[in-house]
Amino acid sequence: MKVEQANVLASVQRLIDEADIKRVLFEYAHFLDHNEIKSLTELFTEDCHIAYGSDHGADGIEAYQGTLENEKFGVGAFFAGTSHHVSNVVIDFISEDEARVRSQLYAWHRYNRERADGILMGQYHDIVVRTADGWRIKRRELKTVGTESYHAKGDALNPIPRRTQA
Amino acid sequence: MKVEQANVLASVQRLIDEADIKRVLFEYAHFLDHNEIKSLTELFTEDCHIAYGSDHGADGIEAYQGTLENEKFGVGAFFAGTSHHVSNVVIDFISEDEARVRSQLYAWHRYNRERADGILMGQYHDIVVRTADGWRIKRRELKTVGTESYHAKGDALNPIPRRTQA
Amino acid sequence: MKVEQANVLASVQRLIDEADIKRVLFEYAHFLDHNEIKSLTELFTEDCHIAYGSDHGADGIEAYQGTLENEKFGVGAFFAGTSHHVSNVVIDFISEDEARVRSQLYAWHRYNRERADGILMGQYHDIVVRTADGWRIKRRELKTVGTESYHAKGDALNPIPRRTQA
Repeated sequence: MKVEQANVLASVQRLIDEADIKRVLFEYAHFLDHNEIKSLTELFTEDCHIAYGSDHGADGIEAYQGTLENEKFGVGAFFAGTSHHVSNVVIDFISEDEARVRSQLYAWHRYNRERADGILMGQYHDIVVRTADGWRIKRRELKTVGTESYHAKGDALNPIPRRTQA
Repeated sequence: MKVEQANVLASVQRLIDEADIKRVLFEYAHFLDHNEIKSLTELFTEDCHIAYGSDHGADGIEAYQGTLENEKFGVGAFFAGTSHHVSNVVIDFISEDEARVRSQLYAWHRYNRERADGILMGQYHDIVVRTADGWRIKRRELKTVGTESYHAKGDALNPIPRRTQA
Repeated sequence: MKVEQANVLASVQRLIDEADIKRVLFEYAHFLDHNEIKSLTELFTEDCHIAYGSDHGADGIEAYQGTLENEKFGVGAFFAGTSHHVSNVVIDFISEDEARVRSQLYAWHRYNRERADGILMGQYHDIVVRTADGWRIKRRELKTVGTESYHAKGDALNPIPRRTQA
């Protein structure tokens, strides 16, 4: 795109919004790795929809917080540590106040029980919206590209639609 | 750099161009992981030069597409899945319409045959050019930093020139 | 943030500074992986403080360079190769000329002695300052999130403060 006097404000707005949106993705990873669930859920809208697999997810922020703090399968109960590396962020604005965001995830997990560490490689497919408090995640879908000794398998995950060789 | 009224348009142009160039790198990874070869090759110029190793690469978009769709060694034939994580993007403009781009790659590969998954860590060294359809990759060289149980080894790869201790 | 004529210069300055700061982080990774210690140390201020663990670090650029070039434990002596993948960069400006920066690291290490490759996942917590020669790192602390067969363990590392389940 050619930046000109006529579109410079809109161009800078796009860049600032993109920087702020990326920051939400990175704060999510940070709060997740620190098991700071309250701060994490503040990055989402009240009516958020989360889909991690065919029957693994949440509708609404309270349900989501419930899964993250579940005393058996929550982040702190299930994992002794995690490291979320988010890259390849691609942002498409649907309107001035809403965007579709795709990012690539490399996530390492150490379990509280005795087993090998698990790796999940995947993609976050998000809808983010501008609110009075900044950009928030309204919809987050995790699609899985591959795993290494990860606890969840097959139908519990949501695979990317990779084209198989004709 | 100090941004002033006199250089604000050029500064914003640089930032918009950098965002667009990064997007090309991320779309490449996405199409590769989805085995969407036609969409992938549209990110390159007709006369592109690809170098993955001393005798592994392609000259021109048709030759490149041929290697990617090869029925024995192509992306879909050889791999059951891949995940490409691209970070550390550094962009240097050679002119307004051409840039030198370096990025760091973590690439995971699951094979169609029975063997351990392979990891390649490396760097893309690209020349990108502005075209009527946006930024395109004109030259892409992959340099290898390290591998874990990857199928290609030694001379088939193109190692980074790491300084050995004096 | 709403970009307007009144704040457009400041907004663009922020974006240019962020791009330049990210570049310093990526150049660091690049020079480290290439064992180019002189170029690497030029990214730091003379009075830099480096903390990798409770008793592992350096005060001042000469001491830092000494650890990196140590003939037994330095980068070239200890490792046959490394690959540093830096993502999730979050930048907070303290003033126009100083910023707090956090990034996520995936670092692969191949040793010169016979042993398995080591992985370190962590976070860089940096203070960067604007100098006449561009942004430089004044303080770098590495916090460890997790490791896989890495040579350093326990107290030698500086763990992130992860909340344990109540």
